[in-house]
Amino acid sequence: MLRRVYLDNSATTQVAPEVLEAMMPFLTENFGNPSSIHHFGQIARSAVDKARHQVAEILNARPNEIIFTSGGTESNNLAIRGLIQELIRKEPDVRPHIITSVIEHPAVKMVCEDLEKSGCDVTFLPCHEDGVVRFEDVVAAMTDRTVLISIMTANNEIGTLQPVAEIGTFVRSLRNDGRKIYFHTDAVQAIGKIKVDVEEIGCDLLSLSAHKIHAPKGVGALFVRRGTRLHPQNIGGKQERGIRGGTDAVPQIVGLGKAAEMAGEKMHEDAERLRQMRDRFETAVFEMIPDTHLNGSRDRRVPNISNISFGSVEGEGLLINLDMQGIAVSTGSACSSGSLEPSPIIRALGREDQLARGAIRFSFGRYNGDEDVEHTLAILPRAVETLRSLAPPKR
Amino acid sequence: MLRRVYLDNSATTQVAPEVLEAMMPFLTENFGNPSSIHHFGQIARSAVDKARHQVAEILNARPNEIIFTSGGTESNNLAIRGLIQELIRKEPDVRPHIITSVIEHPAVKMVCEDLEKSGCDVTFLPCHEDGVVRFEDVVAAMTDRTVLISIMTANNEIGTLQPVAEIGTFVRSLRNDGRKIYFHTDAVQAIGKIKVDVEEIGCDLLSLSAHKIHAPKGVGALFVRRGTRLHPQNIGGKQERGIRGGTDAVPQIVGLGKAAEMAGEKMHEDAERLRQMRDRFETAVFEMIPDTHLNGSRDRRVPNISNISFGSVEGEGLLINLDMQGIAVSTGSACSSGSLEPSPIIRALGREDQLARGAIRFSFGRYNGDEDVEHTLAILPRAVETLRSLAPPKR
Repeated sequence: MLRRVYLDNSATTQVAPEVLEAMMPFLTENFGNPSSIHHFGQIARSAVDKARHQVAEILNARPNEIIFTSGGTESNNLAIRGLIQELIRKEPDVRPHIITSVIEHPAVKMVCEDLEKSGCDVTFLPCHEDGVVRFEDVVAAMTDRTVLISIMTANNEIGTLQPVAEIGTFVRSLRNDGRKIYFHTDAVQAIGKIKVDVEEIGCDLLSLSAHKIHAPKGVGALFVRRGTRLHPQNIGGKQERGIRGGTDAVPQIVGLGKAAEMAGEKMHEDAERLRQMRDRFETAVFEMIPDTHLNGSRDRRVPNISNISFGSVEGEGLLINLDMQGIAVSTGSACSSGSLEPSPIIRALGREDQLARGAIRFSFGRYNGDEDVEHTLAILPRAVETLRSLAPPKR
Repeated sequence: MLRRVYLDNSATTQVAPEVLEAMMPFLTENFGNPSSIHHFGQIARSAVDKARHQVAEILNARPNEIIFTSGGTESNNLAIRGLIQELIRKEPDVRPHIITSVIEHPAVKMVCEDLEKSGCDVTFLPCHEDGVVRFEDVVAAMTDRTVLISIMTANNEIGTLQPVAEIGTFVRSLRNDGRKIYFHTDAVQAIGKIKVDVEEIGCDLLSLSAHKIHAPKGVGALFVRRGTRLHPQNIGGKQERGIRGGTDAVPQIVGLGKAAEMAGEKMHEDAERLRQMRDRFETAVFEMIPDTHLNGSRDRRVPNISNISFGSVEGEGLLINLDMQGIAVSTGSACSSGSLEPSPIIRALGREDQLARGAIRFSFGRYNGDEDVEHTLAILPRAVETLRSLAPPKR
């Protein structure tokens, strides 16, 4: 049987056995609706409350600042659209201005584009060739009408860390001067990889997703700093203080809580191990395979992502070749796979099309071991060579 | 140990063991992201496709007409707001008119109220004292600007069936005459209880929720008839043909698929058994307890709901008394529990406040047996008597 190695942990992760164990009672006998007053409901309610504490804890937030959603995408939609709609509702004559970047996840970028079509101005900041948006560019983009800055904590394709603490400090100082301005950060790829503390970052809104930290798909959370008002998007019940209606997804929320707790406990150990694994892999790849290029800053990034462009190779061809040999990686993000365009993130680094098309993201996770790296290193060089020898990539 | 009887199956249901079994591989080894091109992704993708077929099958729809969401609430939001925003985008100068009813679930009613504040007109039709909205009232409410009719298939508190097939036929005939008008129905409480066929109903949009049919919380679906265009609400990925972004909640979607399949297979048997159980329960209650009143039509309703007002009793007091004796029921819907107001649905029937406050919903499910009915009948009469004897309800 083909040995399989999963190096696509930034796309999704395996549910941790401890997480599944925590979920199981809520997939079986404890099936109540947390909105029900009776016994069955109250068991479910207290499980959701516990999970809210667990998620708040790793973010250094208060439990009542955590809103459960269906995932990172909904968290980003609720944060950005919810905030802007609330501001417009209060001051219908003001045309709000948003500052974001070209390297945001589509769940941020596309929401901003959608708002642009309905009466907002949006500045999409570039990033430098290191994959980092510059704080000075954020400051320079400010106008009198800027109400929201949305910059991710860590990029999903190349893992680069953005200057979120500087932006947070800046936004706080403006607010202390009486300006109405908010800071949202998409921290989906940062949670569990680096310390994410809403007080250190100084953000008002922060999105996270469960399935990137060994909890199930279909659940996420949004940190909403006390006093930050959002117009509800999913309307229809009193759940989540009226900000997000719909029956709480109890088993998944419980899973997210447990995974958050584990991420808090294991982060230092996991991160250090992943960094060493990733760096060893990267060093070997650069030694063994000519014409390889690291995408994004080597130092300023999460410990588990390595995004490498292989010259004269089509990324998708290499992905499929590796998959046939049991190794799962990705080109770009899973959310935009199937697209034949080179990744907009890699292009934003200034890479020419040929190298942008040759980009592969290797993302390591808790369940990868050294033998996965060895196995991949035994296969990858020949795969690249094969693709390069077959034909020059078509343009 | 206290014997527990769960008679709140309209609030949520237990996950069927067969459903959990179908989900388990996707909570363990088959953890891929369906948007990933590799092996892990493709296994997940084909599981989602299978579930889409299973859901389409019970609705008599095509698989590509099924959009997976995070639940009934999101389905309703996406249907109504998505349709209206798309129409406004195309014809910004038209002020759309929506026809709905006062007995809709908050996920429909509140979305319509929200749209009312942002440039739509909404007619909230009353219901008659039998809990049924009249087709003639729908026709009479039509204006030149009516673009959407949203009437539920079965009410969530009293189970009454609405004239959806008549509305569907009417809307189709208008569309054949070239009018741009659409019909949405919230079928959350109808699926698995009565036959729900999108061709017979003639709807363009239909919402359903997994956790009402023995699948997990946190997933639902929206039927979107081919050619019906919606403005996406949860934006940020190419999932669900771009209409609903976010990583597919694979385990839950697989669970919904299996539950839909089972609902299709078991519906006739389940429904007949539940009807007999419910009717026997109701008859006994009316015989044993004086001053009891059925809310809504006796005949025109789903087979599993019995909503009864107990004169001179506060529903919430009775609920708590029964819960202490192990019996789980509800006042109103779970989504509005905690509210001290009498249920707006029961009031819409014309019940005076005193009787509206005394309403209790008993909702039966697949895992209830005759012994649950006997046990409840052994406890309920004395509980009502106790509450009545303690004090006259405060007004």
